[in-house]
Amino acid sequence: MDSEIISRLKEAVGSDYVITDEEKARPFLIDWTKRFRGRAVVVRPGSTEEVSRVMAVAYDTRTPVVPQSGGTTLVGGSIPDDSGRAILLSLGRMNRIEEIDTGNDTVTVEAGLILEQLHRAVEEKGRFFPLSFGTQGSAQIGGALATNAGGTAVLRYGNMRDLCLGLEVVLPDGRVMTALRGLRKDNTGYDLKQLFIGSEGTLGVITRAVLKLFPIPRGRQTALVGIPDLESSVKLLDRVKAAAGSELTGFELIQRKCIERVAEQLPGVELPGPVDDCPWWILAELSSQAQEGASLEAILAEAFEAGEVANAYLAQSLSDSEAFWRIRESIPEADAIVGNNLHNDVSLKISLIPEFLEVTVKRLYDAYPWLDPSLYGHLGDGNIHFNIGSIPSNLAFENEEGIRRITYEEVVKRNGSISAEHGIGQLKRGHFLALKDPLELEIMERISQAIDPRGIMNPGKLLADRKD
Amino acid sequence: MDSEIISRLKEAVGSDYVITDEEKARPFLIDWTKRFRGRAVVVRPGSTEEVSRVMAVAYDTRTPVVPQSGGTTLVGGSIPDDSGRAILLSLGRMNRIEEIDTGNDTVTVEAGLILEQLHRAVEEKGRFFPLSFGTQGSAQIGGALATNAGGTAVLRYGNMRDLCLGLEVVLPDGRVMTALRGLRKDNTGYDLKQLFIGSEGTLGVITRAVLKLFPIPRGRQTALVGIPDLESSVKLLDRVKAAAGSELTGFELIQRKCIERVAEQLPGVELPGPVDDCPWWILAELSSQAQEGASLEAILAEAFEAGEVANAYLAQSLSDSEAFWRIRESIPEADAIVGNNLHNDVSLKISLIPEFLEVTVKRLYDAYPWLDPSLYGHLGDGNIHFNIGSIPSNLAFENEEGIRRITYEEVVKRNGSISAEHGIGQLKRGHFLALKDPLELEIMERISQAIDPRGIMNPGKLLADRKD
Repeated sequence: MDSEIISRLKEAVGSDYVITDEEKARPFLIDWTKRFRGRAVVVRPGSTEEVSRVMAVAYDTRTPVVPQSGGTTLVGGSIPDDSGRAILLSLGRMNRIEEIDTGNDTVTVEAGLILEQLHRAVEEKGRFFPLSFGTQGSAQIGGALATNAGGTAVLRYGNMRDLCLGLEVVLPDGRVMTALRGLRKDNTGYDLKQLFIGSEGTLGVITRAVLKLFPIPRGRQTALVGIPDLESSVKLLDRVKAAAGSELTGFELIQRKCIERVAEQLPGVELPGPVDDCPWWILAELSSQAQEGASLEAILAEAFEAGEVANAYLAQSLSDSEAFWRIRESIPEADAIVGNNLHNDVSLKISLIPEFLEVTVKRLYDAYPWLDPSLYGHLGDGNIHFNIGSIPSNLAFENEEGIRRITYEEVVKRNGSISAEHGIGQLKRGHFLALKDPLELEIMERISQAIDPRGIMNPGKLLADRKD
Repeated sequence: MDSEIISRLKEAVGSDYVITDEEKARPFLIDWTKRFRGRAVVVRPGSTEEVSRVMAVAYDTRTPVVPQSGGTTLVGGSIPDDSGRAILLSLGRMNRIEEIDTGNDTVTVEAGLILEQLHRAVEEKGRFFPLSFGTQGSAQIGGALATNAGGTAVLRYGNMRDLCLGLEVVLPDGRVMTALRGLRKDNTGYDLKQLFIGSEGTLGVITRAVLKLFPIPRGRQTALVGIPDLESSVKLLDRVKAAAGSELTGFELIQRKCIERVAEQLPGVELPGPVDDCPWWILAELSSQAQEGASLEAILAEAFEAGEVANAYLAQSLSDSEAFWRIRESIPEADAIVGNNLHNDVSLKISLIPEFLEVTVKRLYDAYPWLDPSLYGHLGDGNIHFNIGSIPSNLAFENEEGIRRITYEEVVKRNGSISAEHGIGQLKRGHFLALKDPLELEIMERISQAIDPRGIMNPGKLLADRKD
């Protein structure tokens, strides 16, 4: 990078926070799946004002900017290319909680705040922030917004998009749009925050947000439920929804093998009992505010009578509940230990999922008999982590294009999504550009042109390269 | 309008569905508050394909298009100007329910479907569509989407934006963007439907939608609760939220006078008992799926001990519940009978509402001692229908600018919204353009330019006139 630009960046944020040394910059330039590496000058602003100054320099000099939060992206969304031309804009220093407003049930935070720290801070005030996923000890709010993060509580509380009431965004030219109103209803013009949420850093830099808070749920009932076949998963979901309504806060489908692998690879994680009698398991959770809610035990007893359930372990305590969730959350780690690292993340209409899983796994096995599918996900949201790797991973990686092609063909045939939670980033850009409706792509490009006319925001991610 | 354009429109939809006769066109060209009138050729397409053909003619000839659904806008959003140049595009013939998918809990509908008909159709399948407001017997789904409609169930289920999973939109040039995927999670690029929802017909014509369905709530507890003062409203809301969580589905604040006026003016609406002992009342409702939920009676008993509640009528039956809601829903009609027709619709952080009401009403009384405030609204969402009219209305209408100026000054000072539910349309455009952050306005204009480059979509509404 031009030394003139570097000195302007040092002026903008202070020279301590502009990292040009390759060794010191490295942690920011490798993604945590170790698939993507890049080169860039790392800039670490401490305030919105400093982000604004950095963006003004970038705009002026047409320097690409790659915003980065906790770096837990699975699609290379916050790693620059290897040209060394870009600014890696790390938001991690901007990690303050500005206000917890229990009267309005909102919290105002900076983008670099770590999700788990937000959980703890609002719990101390008797409130609950529901967004929750495996990497919440590293993931930051800005990245969760930029990727519209999901996780295990979407069924009841929605994605990050549904949890956000206001945003502050630094635009590509450095101007600051502060729309931190914290209102639950506001029909004064286009809802601009919706554009930036889920845009993967391609339209601007999210610097602050107002998020919704909820009362802490009091009653919690958790069960690990064995089902005789995939079809029963959807029937059981319908039954629990009808009986428990909005008290249903978790409904995760898990392939038996995933549970067994966790038990084998992670001696610290205990199973509540044998799981070999059922091919698929459901981790179901009801949460209610009232002391007396729907009874999960009673619902499961009825499902057992109907043949939808073959076995069930009911949590007897909060620590049982947490142990059950630990099984679910440890699956990626167990897969990583045995060397299966190919991630996937699709969504379909819920009713189509059993048939999709059967057809697609069979097609993949026919083409690649050595595959090791690791299947689990948020069935209640229609979202399956359709991980079709191999042990070790290299065989699957060598055939990645073919594996993804078959998978995505079956997804698109059923009008599903090739990325339910993880976004597009670098990893899925080719497939996304090939499979998305060309008219939708054209509108996205027009919006990108309108908001980022110089094309400096996170180039190489999501949308096609600009032709100018 | 040019006869060449009219004959092309007749080709597009059939000559029966192009209305040029002024008498026959009139019902489409007066809004239901009788404040706005316009002139236009009325075109009534019967399918997305026909809408597409109409838009292609409009694009080609640079003819303005004003989309119209049920016509229940309170801000003149679907009434053209009086130039006679525009096409009034009425979606009412497109009123089919295409699919109720109980497995996916979604329904696919055309834009002209009346909201109340949707309620009935999904109820027959054992499902619930929560959007609900006074004019639901006339309002259509397309308009509810274009204005991001709210209503009485937002507290639990969100606005129309939160209830929509997919849209089909005919773009200004006639091309059709069909994104009817019905997925609860889809992070493949910008969420384009968010742009069209709430855009008041300024970006394209919504023709079909996929909407979320819910299980029918079983337990329902309703109470009409008298409170000693405004401060108690927020305290009681906090208490009920903490005790009932997501079971709280309604929390409406009502000025005593509004209830008394309903009783005086509408003999068919009965009160459960005297209301003169409290200046403000709350209509509170809990709904739960389980047979045993939180007990509203127990919560109110605690609130009584704490001095937050002074009187309460608990519904003893479903018909009691409905009678309580009828009181709330009859307020606009009672106001109309006595001649008070000035509507308003603001939102603020919930905790600021009592103080806002006291300060603003006092300021308005000081300036206009003859005012007749009619105050009620969705306190749980921070949304108040701050109706400051007069009896008869003409005095208030003659001073409308002054009344709105004082009101909006107090709203903006508290970072609130001057239109929580009703949108901007024609009525609030001047105030909106004067009060909204200029940078947000600039981004909205850039988006409008990007999607509607010829500026033919609903001109004169929401955004400023194009300068070209």
